[in-house]
Amino acid sequence: MTRNRPRRPLTMAELAGEAGVSVPTVSRVLNGRSEVSEETRRKVMAVIAEHGPPRLSRPGRAVPRTEAIELLFHELESTWAIQILWGVQRAAAESGCAVMVSGLGGRFFPPDTWVEEVVARRSTAVIAALSGFTAAQHQRLLAGGVPVVVLDPPRAPLPNTPWVSATNGAGAASATRHLLELGHRRIALVAGPEEIPCAFDRLQGYHAAMADAGASVTGLVRSVSMNSDEGLVAARELLRVRPTAIVATNDLQAMGVYEAVREAGLRIPDDVSVVGFDDLSVAAWMSPGLTTVHQPLHDLAVTATDLVLCLAWGTPVPTLRLELPTHLVVRGSTAPPTPG
Amino acid sequence: MTRNRPRRPLTMAELAGEAGVSVPTVSRVLNGRSEVSEETRRKVMAVIAEHGPPRLSRPGRAVPRTEAIELLFHELESTWAIQILWGVQRAAAESGCAVMVSGLGGRFFPPDTWVEEVVARRSTAVIAALSGFTAAQHQRLLAGGVPVVVLDPPRAPLPNTPWVSATNGAGAASATRHLLELGHRRIALVAGPEEIPCAFDRLQGYHAAMADAGASVTGLVRSVSMNSDEGLVAARELLRVRPTAIVATNDLQAMGVYEAVREAGLRIPDDVSVVGFDDLSVAAWMSPGLTTVHQPLHDLAVTATDLVLCLAWGTPVPTLRLELPTHLVVRGSTAPPTPG
Repeated sequence: MTRNRPRRPLTMAELAGEAGVSVPTVSRVLNGRSEVSEETRRKVMAVIAEHGPPRLSRPGRAVPRTEAIELLFHELESTWAIQILWGVQRAAAESGCAVMVSGLGGRFFPPDTWVEEVVARRSTAVIAALSGFTAAQHQRLLAGGVPVVVLDPPRAPLPNTPWVSATNGAGAASATRHLLELGHRRIALVAGPEEIPCAFDRLQGYHAAMADAGASVTGLVRSVSMNSDEGLVAARELLRVRPTAIVATNDLQAMGVYEAVREAGLRIPDDVSVVGFDDLSVAAWMSPGLTTVHQPLHDLAVTATDLVLCLAWGTPVPTLRLELPTHLVVRGSTAPPTPG
Repeated sequence: MTRNRPRRPLTMAELAGEAGVSVPTVSRVLNGRSEVSEETRRKVMAVIAEHGPPRLSRPGRAVPRTEAIELLFHELESTWAIQILWGVQRAAAESGCAVMVSGLGGRFFPPDTWVEEVVARRSTAVIAALSGFTAAQHQRLLAGGVPVVVLDPPRAPLPNTPWVSATNGAGAASATRHLLELGHRRIALVAGPEEIPCAFDRLQGYHAAMADAGASVTGLVRSVSMNSDEGLVAARELLRVRPTAIVATNDLQAMGVYEAVREAGLRIPDDVSVVGFDDLSVAAWMSPGLTTVHQPLHDLAVTATDLVLCLAWGTPVPTLRLELPTHLVVRGSTAPPTPG
């Protein structure tokens, strides 16, 4: 694999700027015309020697404005991201819009240069998926005429900005109640970071269901990041206090819980029941199949797309917050606790 | 979820065209100026009544040209796609390029309108991932100044177009040899469609390894599409002829093979060994972990990106075909055959 990354050639204007001459002068040098002084020619050729030949504009008319949604992800490489992308791409295509995708490699806020690029290319709108903006970045986008919708905010929501999520609290409560109804009492939670609203809401849903049933949560909650490695670490600790069931804040954490249960020589669901959240496509393929809370990822994506295009194209938007319903999908990972 | 998809407003020019008047006339009508005839005003307002108010251009300078790679997928909703997208996005960002993503919902060729849009917005380049173009579409892109690189062509490669793939034949041969070395002889293959070059190459690799070992393949090969549902169907049939091992053409098919083995009341690897191809992130999480051929998806994506940007930006491209190496990852799904 070549690591000699291609560099964008300078435009004629950039080349002229670098050389401190005008664009027509650059053109005259390139065309070998005689009315250019030797010194000017040397300046231009020095810039070309450093940056390569300029990019010549293609024949034809000026570039038409592309209607394009910028889709920004906290983390691109996940099944969650592809299911969101799939929905946004379908909805955008139906509205005649292209989709530009960016990933932040695990960070929640983009660099300022990203914001400047989006404003410069006058994109139609931005959907931030589990990612967001500083107040200054947000102002810059709005001042540049680029509306924003957030899909699952990573922090407290941006002011006056619509956001879309699933019913996270109700979903986690239904998962916990499902275990209570099976007869479990010692139900542990692999929680997510509390500053992430969807993780906080799921934590609250678990607490509410446990309190309603009069079940104690003391020592049964561990907060970690929402990936499988951290799910594994948290589940190892939680298994020491011998829960009969574990609720994970998302399916990725639940994959880590499976691994921890196997390591401990225990079986799912015989010794420990496990519930996830998201219903990623992998959930049905896990062994046993993962009981989990289904998030309508496709509908969330379509809704966010419709909302942000309404904002961009001047149609009134009815509400600042939209919650779409979740439902529990019961598979083989949950069963009544084994007596004794 | 609203299904009332937002419609792009007309531009001033489109509105003027619809009404059969000039843009300044539309502007005069909108500004309530008196020098417009009543008939002209009525024509303009009739178009606005049908299409809504025109989109007013935003303040500021003309739209700068965006350097953007178009990334086209056969099927967007797969782990394979997200791993490719992740690599392209990283490499493109390092070169100052945005990435526009399109999915074809399972088709291998885009509609002509897609090609026209790409040419109209003068995108920098196209990477077609397990997708391609008709000869006419390909000509249109090249004539429009948009270079193309294919990552795993779905059909015979396009003329004079670089393409990037993994060493598919050698990879499948190594998977088959691994099983032969464990002592297997009755090794079945869930093949892919032969018209897809990567599937054909894997089939050839299997045949070569089996022939070298003098092992018969009669009745041991079934060709199906490269997804888990079809893998399940093919494996059900293959299990009737009692193979001791099954090679799948990709990991998705291998997931279907796992399901078929479970249905038949058999165990992996005790009764049947299974090998996949791709090493998707899910492979390590399957139970047992899937022995599979690792494709360097990230490197493939980076290589395709570098190649197509070299083409777009005028750097000479060394070769028309690039193959990146694969290697076998041995996990728990393969073991020596049980005697008897």
